[in-house]
Amino acid sequence: MSSESETLSSSASAPPPPSQSEESSHEDDSKSVSKKAAKKEAAKLEKLRRRQEAAAALSNATSSLSVEEDPLSANYGDVPLVELQSKAPADVNSWTEVGKLNEAMKDQHVLVRGRAQTIRSVSKNMAFVVVREHGFTVQCVITAIPDVVSRQMVKFVSGLNRESIVDVEGIVSVPKDPIKGATQQVEVQVRKLYCVSKALPTLPIIVEDAARSEIEIEKALQAGEQLVRVNQDTRLNNRVIDIRTPANQGIFRIQSQVGTVFRQFLLSENFFEIHTPKLIAGSSEGGASVFRLDYKGQPACLAQSPQLHKQMAICGDFGRVFEIGPVFRAEDSFTHRHLCEFTGLDVEMEIKNHYFEVMDIVDRLFVAMFDSLNQNCEKELEAVGRQYPFEPLKYLRKTLRLTFEEGVQMLKDAGVEVDPLGDLNTETERKLGKLVLEKYGTEFYILHRYPLAVRPFYTMPCYDNPAYSNSFDVFIRGEEIISGAQRVHVPELLAERAQGCGIDVKTISTYIDSFRYGAPPHGGFGVGLERVVMLFCGLNNIRKTSLFPRDPLRIAP
Amino acid sequence: MSSESETLSSSASAPPPPSQSEESSHEDDSKSVSKKAAKKEAAKLEKLRRRQEAAAALSNATSSLSVEEDPLSANYGDVPLVELQSKAPADVNSWTEVGKLNEAMKDQHVLVRGRAQTIRSVSKNMAFVVVREHGFTVQCVITAIPDVVSRQMVKFVSGLNRESIVDVEGIVSVPKDPIKGATQQVEVQVRKLYCVSKALPTLPIIVEDAARSEIEIEKALQAGEQLVRVNQDTRLNNRVIDIRTPANQGIFRIQSQVGTVFRQFLLSENFFEIHTPKLIAGSSEGGASVFRLDYKGQPACLAQSPQLHKQMAICGDFGRVFEIGPVFRAEDSFTHRHLCEFTGLDVEMEIKNHYFEVMDIVDRLFVAMFDSLNQNCEKELEAVGRQYPFEPLKYLRKTLRLTFEEGVQMLKDAGVEVDPLGDLNTETERKLGKLVLEKYGTEFYILHRYPLAVRPFYTMPCYDNPAYSNSFDVFIRGEEIISGAQRVHVPELLAERAQGCGIDVKTISTYIDSFRYGAPPHGGFGVGLERVVMLFCGLNNIRKTSLFPRDPLRIAP
Repeated sequence: MSSESETLSSSASAPPPPSQSEESSHEDDSKSVSKKAAKKEAAKLEKLRRRQEAAAALSNATSSLSVEEDPLSANYGDVPLVELQSKAPADVNSWTEVGKLNEAMKDQHVLVRGRAQTIRSVSKNMAFVVVREHGFTVQCVITAIPDVVSRQMVKFVSGLNRESIVDVEGIVSVPKDPIKGATQQVEVQVRKLYCVSKALPTLPIIVEDAARSEIEIEKALQAGEQLVRVNQDTRLNNRVIDIRTPANQGIFRIQSQVGTVFRQFLLSENFFEIHTPKLIAGSSEGGASVFRLDYKGQPACLAQSPQLHKQMAICGDFGRVFEIGPVFRAEDSFTHRHLCEFTGLDVEMEIKNHYFEVMDIVDRLFVAMFDSLNQNCEKELEAVGRQYPFEPLKYLRKTLRLTFEEGVQMLKDAGVEVDPLGDLNTETERKLGKLVLEKYGTEFYILHRYPLAVRPFYTMPCYDNPAYSNSFDVFIRGEEIISGAQRVHVPELLAERAQGCGIDVKTISTYIDSFRYGAPPHGGFGVGLERVVMLFCGLNNIRKTSLFPRDPLRIAP
Repeated sequence: MSSESETLSSSASAPPPPSQSEESSHEDDSKSVSKKAAKKEAAKLEKLRRRQEAAAALSNATSSLSVEEDPLSANYGDVPLVELQSKAPADVNSWTEVGKLNEAMKDQHVLVRGRAQTIRSVSKNMAFVVVREHGFTVQCVITAIPDVVSRQMVKFVSGLNRESIVDVEGIVSVPKDPIKGATQQVEVQVRKLYCVSKALPTLPIIVEDAARSEIEIEKALQAGEQLVRVNQDTRLNNRVIDIRTPANQGIFRIQSQVGTVFRQFLLSENFFEIHTPKLIAGSSEGGASVFRLDYKGQPACLAQSPQLHKQMAICGDFGRVFEIGPVFRAEDSFTHRHLCEFTGLDVEMEIKNHYFEVMDIVDRLFVAMFDSLNQNCEKELEAVGRQYPFEPLKYLRKTLRLTFEEGVQMLKDAGVEVDPLGDLNTETERKLGKLVLEKYGTEFYILHRYPLAVRPFYTMPCYDNPAYSNSFDVFIRGEEIISGAQRVHVPELLAERAQGCGIDVKTISTYIDSFRYGAPPHGGFGVGLERVVMLFCGLNNIRKTSLFPRDPLRIAP
C-alpha cells in the first residue's frame, strides 16, 4: 500500500498529453467482431500503460524541484491516498454541483469536484480547464497572481491529464460574452486546485469525440475538417468513458425516471412489487432460447420472463403485482432491438370482467409516463437530442385502440397484403405505425385481438372466435414495446394449449397445478425498459439504452 | 377448447369435500428432503386428481336435474368459460373489496369476489360461506327465501369446494354479536353466488391450517385437541396456497414497502436507479460460489452482486446510483438466513471526504424505512404478528455507531474472547447485539472499521492503520443485514489487493481498467431485502420472506 501512496503524493506536474489515437470508422450495428476488437483494445491499453509509466518516471525526475521552491505549493497538487482514505468528515454542503453554478453566484467562493475535460495552456501565466460533473461543464481560469496563484500552479494545471478528477476552489465570475465551450454561463477564477485521481495520459476514447453528433461531423467534413467518429463497438468496449457523455448521462437518468413512474403509478393503483426467481427448474416457457445451467446437480435455466411466477402470485391471492427485473433470452438475434439480457417491467392483475381492464392500465400508465418524462426530464431529453436529434413523441390523451383485424385492413387498404391470422413482421409493424400516425396523429397505440396462433400458450382465446385471442401489443414509433393478454386460468385448457404449442407439460406442472386450487381470471403485460427509452428518444439501437449491453457476441465489460 | 367450456358450464353442485389429509410434522429448518417430498407431493396430487374426476362424474350424473327445475337458477351456478373470456367491460367500481366492508355499509347491495375459505351447511335452508380476499374475510349467509333464494342455491353453495373463486352479490347486515371467524364485522346476506373458478375438492394444504400460530396449536394440545401443523417444506412445495395466509399476504406487502421506501428515499437524495448485467464473463468477484454457464460458447457466470458494475457506473460519472435486483450465490449454506438467490438492494455513491457519508445515508434511509413500515403497514404487521408474534423493532432516531474495536471490547468485558483482527461469527454477532441492546437500548446499529483481512479486496484500508478498513456492517436484532465500505479507487492498489486475495487479476481487468481513466473516491453498501423483512418482523427463517425461495436443495416451484 505504501508504494501507491508515495506515487500519488509526489505532486509533480504530469507530462503533456500525447496525441490521441483516432478512430473514424462508421457507426455499425451489424454483427461486430467484438472478440478481435477486445484483444486489439487490450493490446492498445497495454501500450498506453507502458507509455504512461515511462512518462511518469521522466516527469518525476525533472519537475519536482520547482514545486518545492513555491511558497504557495499548498494550493495545488496531487491529493495523497492517505488523505483520500479519510479526510475529516466535512460538511457535504460546502460543495457546489457544476450543474448548479449560475450568474446569481457571482463573486461567491465555491468548491467543486469534477473531471478536467479539456486543459488549455495559454501562457506561463494562464491556463483554462473545463471541469465536467455529471454531464455539466464549467470553464475554470487559472491566472498567475502574485501571492495568490503561482506560476508553478499554472504549470501543474497545464500538465493535468484529461478526465482526471480535480477539486477546484475559486470565485465565480460572469464573463461579458456567452461561453460556448461549457454548459454553465459562469467561470470559476481558480484559487486552489487538487488532483484527486489521475487518468492515464492517453485514453482509449475521448469524451468530446464520443459526444459529437453526426451533424457536427458532416458539417466539419464539408468545411474540409475530418473529426473523430467513435464507432459503437469502441464505445461499448470502453463503456465507462462512453457513458460520461451528456447524451448518455441523460439516457440513463431518463431510464431511471421510466422505472420510477412505472412503480409510482402502479403503487397508486393498488399494485405491489414482487421478486420472482430467475433460476428455475426445467425449461421456462419452452423454446430453445434459454440459458441452461447446472443447479447443484439439477438441470436449470434462467427465466425468459417472470410470466409463470407472476401468474402464480395471482393464484396466491396477490391481486395486482408488478416486477422490475432482468430477463434472459439466449436468442441469436443481431438486430437493433434485441438483447440477450434486458430489464423487464412486468405487470399481472386480476380481471373482473374483461381484458380491457389490463389495457386501461397500460393506457393510463404510459400517458402518465410520457407526461412525466416531458415535464421532469427536460434537460436530459435536450442532452440526448443535441447528439441524437429527435422529434418529441406524438401521443393522445386517451390511447388509440385498434383490433388486429382493423390493422390488417388498414395495411390492405394501403396495398400491403398480410396473413390475417399470422403475425406482423418488423416491416409491416413500421408501415402500420406510419398509417396510424397519418390517420390518427399518434405514434403510440394499442393493437388488440391478435390471432391466437401467434401468441404464447397461456393466452386466453376470444369468447366469440377461438382463432383470435384476448391479447394486445403496444407500439411506439412503429415498434412493439409491450405484449399483454388475458391468461388462461382454467388448468385443463392451459395444459391442452401448452401441449398444442409443443411444450412438455411435465416441465411446467407446478405452474399448471397452481390453477387447480382456484384461480381468478387475470391478465397482464410485459414491457422492455430499454425499448421504451430507445423509442421515446427516437434512438436507433437498443445498445444505447442498456448500461452494459449483452448480445450474442458481447458479455463484457 | 369446447370441452373445457362445457365442463365448466355444467352448473351442477359439486360433491361435499372429503376429509383433509393431515400433516403434523414439526416446523423444520434443517436440511430437508425436498426431492423426495416433491415426488410424494406429486403422487398425492395425482391421487387427488383421480378422486376429483370420479366425484365430478358422479355429481354430474345425480344432481343436475334439480337445478333445471329451479326458476331461480340464474342466481347461482358455475360461470361458463365463454363468459370469463369476455363479460362486457363493466364498471370496475361496482366491486367492493372484502377488506373494505364495514358497518357503515349496512343495508347496501354489494358485489364481492373472493375465495370460499370455509363452507358450512347448517340445514337444507341455510349455509355459511366465509369469503376471503387478499387475507381479509367476511361471513356470507345463504338462507332460502321463497322467490328470492332457492333451496337448490343453498345446496349449490353447500357443495362448493374450499378455495374456489366465487362472485357474491348480497346485502350487508350487522349482527348483534361480534364475528369471530372473519376479519370483517359485517355479514353479507347472499342473493346471488357464482363460482368463477373451481378448486380441487381436496387440497394439499388448507389455508386455515397454514395460517395457524404455534400458540394456537399448543393451546389446543393442552385442551386435548391435535390441530394440523403444516411444516415448512410442505408450505414451500405448495407455495401458491401457502402465500394466501394473512401473515404471508402481510409479509409480501411489507417487502414491497421496503423496496418503495428504499427507492423514494434515495431518489430524494439525488440517487438514480441503474440495471447492471447479471450475466458476466469470467469469475465475478472470485470465490467458488458462483453459478457457471455457457454464454454462446464463452464461459460466463451469474453476478454474485452488482458490486463491480455499480462501481463502474460511478467511474462513468453516475454520481449516486442504486439497484434492486437478483443476486446469485451458489453456496452450500443450509442456514436460516442464506439463499442461493435473493434480492439485493445496492447503493454506490461518490464520497467527498469520508466514508461516514455512506453511513449517513444508511442511517437516515433505514430510520425512514422503519418509520414508514410502522406507519403504513400497520395491518400487515398485525397480520404477521398474529401468526408469528414479535416485539416491534427498537431503534434510535440517530443510529448508534460503534467501531469494531469497541465491539470487541464490549464482548471482552462480557467474557467473550474474539480475535481482534478476525471476523465475528453468527453467535458473537448475536451476543454483541444483546450487549448493545442492554447498553444503548437499540436493536439497530452500525459496526464500522472492520479488520481489512476479513473484507473483500475492493475495500479501502484505513488511513491510520492498514490492518483496519473504511468499512461497516449493520445489524438488526443481532444479525447482519448490510455490508458497506469505501472502495479502493486507485487501480494499482486495487490490483495489488485483488492479487493478495487470490483473485486472478486478468479475469477482472475491465473492472480494474475502469479506474485508470480517473475515478472519484466512492463507497456504497448492499442490503438483503429478504433479511430486512425477516428481521424487522422477527421471523426465524429467510424462506418465509422469499416468494419462491431457492436454496441448495430447492429450485421449485
